[in-house]
Amino acid sequence: MQPPVAFPFDHDRWVKPIALPVGQPGGSATAFNLPQRMVLPYITAPAALTSLEIRMKLYFFQQSRATRIRWMLEELGVPYELALVDMMKGEHKHPDYLKVHPMGSLPAIEDNGVNLFESAAILMYLADKYPEKRLAPAVGTPERGEYYQWILFAMTEAEAPLATIAQHTRFLPEVERSPVVIERSSKRFKAVAAVLEARMKGREYIVGNSFTAADVVLGGVLFLASRVGQLGDDLPTLRAYFDRLMARPAAKKGYGG
Amino acid sequence: MQPPVAFPFDHDRWVKPIALPVGQPGGSATAFNLPQRMVLPYITAPAALTSLEIRMKLYFFQQSRATRIRWMLEELGVPYELALVDMMKGEHKHPDYLKVHPMGSLPAIEDNGVNLFESAAILMYLADKYPEKRLAPAVGTPERGEYYQWILFAMTEAEAPLATIAQHTRFLPEVERSPVVIERSSKRFKAVAAVLEARMKGREYIVGNSFTAADVVLGGVLFLASRVGQLGDDLPTLRAYFDRLMARPAAKKGYGG
Repeated sequence: MQPPVAFPFDHDRWVKPIALPVGQPGGSATAFNLPQRMVLPYITAPAALTSLEIRMKLYFFQQSRATRIRWMLEELGVPYELALVDMMKGEHKHPDYLKVHPMGSLPAIEDNGVNLFESAAILMYLADKYPEKRLAPAVGTPERGEYYQWILFAMTEAEAPLATIAQHTRFLPEVERSPVVIERSSKRFKAVAAVLEARMKGREYIVGNSFTAADVVLGGVLFLASRVGQLGDDLPTLRAYFDRLMARPAAKKGYGG
Repeated sequence: MQPPVAFPFDHDRWVKPIALPVGQPGGSATAFNLPQRMVLPYITAPAALTSLEIRMKLYFFQQSRATRIRWMLEELGVPYELALVDMMKGEHKHPDYLKVHPMGSLPAIEDNGVNLFESAAILMYLADKYPEKRLAPAVGTPERGEYYQWILFAMTEAEAPLATIAQHTRFLPEVERSPVVIERSSKRFKAVAAVLEARMKGREYIVGNSFTAADVVLGGVLFLASRVGQLGDDLPTLRAYFDRLMARPAAKKGYGG
């Protein structure tokens, strides 16, 4: 993969596509990178032409939920480009990026002109886009309902208190941090984690019998939980599940391992 | 519709199905209600038999997100039963209800043995279950991605600060309420509402050109916003959208109008 492109973008440079053989994972060393006008005349096979049309751009920062999307793209084995948005430098609030994501949050993707944000939404969209990868239960089945349920549960019930804890232990100015808020959020997360701990007893994946995008959502939330010290020894099943997820090569790639 | 069943449930009484002609809205006055064993022998037409098999139970409390599910069921025109869970009496923390929803929250549904919670997940599940009603964009399309995006945006970005405001103005003990938290959440919601206000300019629905489950999610969130005084005159487009949604007969039914 080419090195991440700095933000704000040099749009002339950005126009260059990454051209990958179809089916090659995005991070493969076989990637080649030539300006489109130079490559196209020499490509005639339809399969190769299709590969050139793949334009998946992920706005990325390592300390953001964009890691989940990179993990998913690696699971899918589709080519993608990383557009680095350095949140430490405030690039996510740059007017150009606000056109991509109106709240100036990460992640966001541009997929052949389709611009999307909200990490869980992007994961569900990607799972649907590549049905042959079977990363989502079939639409209209009870398992599909459970898939939605655990994704929403993870994003609203589990991640919200964790995000609050992260705010009050890391990101807010010292004077605004509140031990009371941290304690309340920690108590809230414990109740949520107990539900997930019970759910995962005897299960390998959160839904059905195979890995899905819901596991990516859960893995990302548990990654945050571990970082803010909320994934303790009292959650052995959940920790084992988290360890299994993080041992996946695609997850390692997403989290920069 | 039969009157809501009190909680904890009388399970003998509960076994009685509501039998409705297929295609009749659940609230119709044409509903008839007989014990299953009495009805089944007399029904031979496959369509009518199917109607008897519909067992959609919605755990309901008027001051909860269960209103959104009732709204959706009315939009779909499918028969359903309401199982009243009186949160004012703490029935949502009853051991029997905790078997349905491990966090003791509302809503939850039981759909022919499929138990689901998380309001947005239930709405997506229901939209998928009745594809002929076209309350979700086709899977694999860009519109489907936008549908996920706005549902997640509504549930994580918009509803979270509103729920915090509701907590600190209504539900927490006086001593735990914090004007600082209210102000921060209100500021947060203003930023989110500005994104929605811009999105809705020139649009009738949040996604595509027709009503979907995403509008139910947004309508429910805006209902909460209006209740906690956050849907002000500075949001004319959003207010008009909210008014249009609430004027729908199915929404009126959901919100007890």
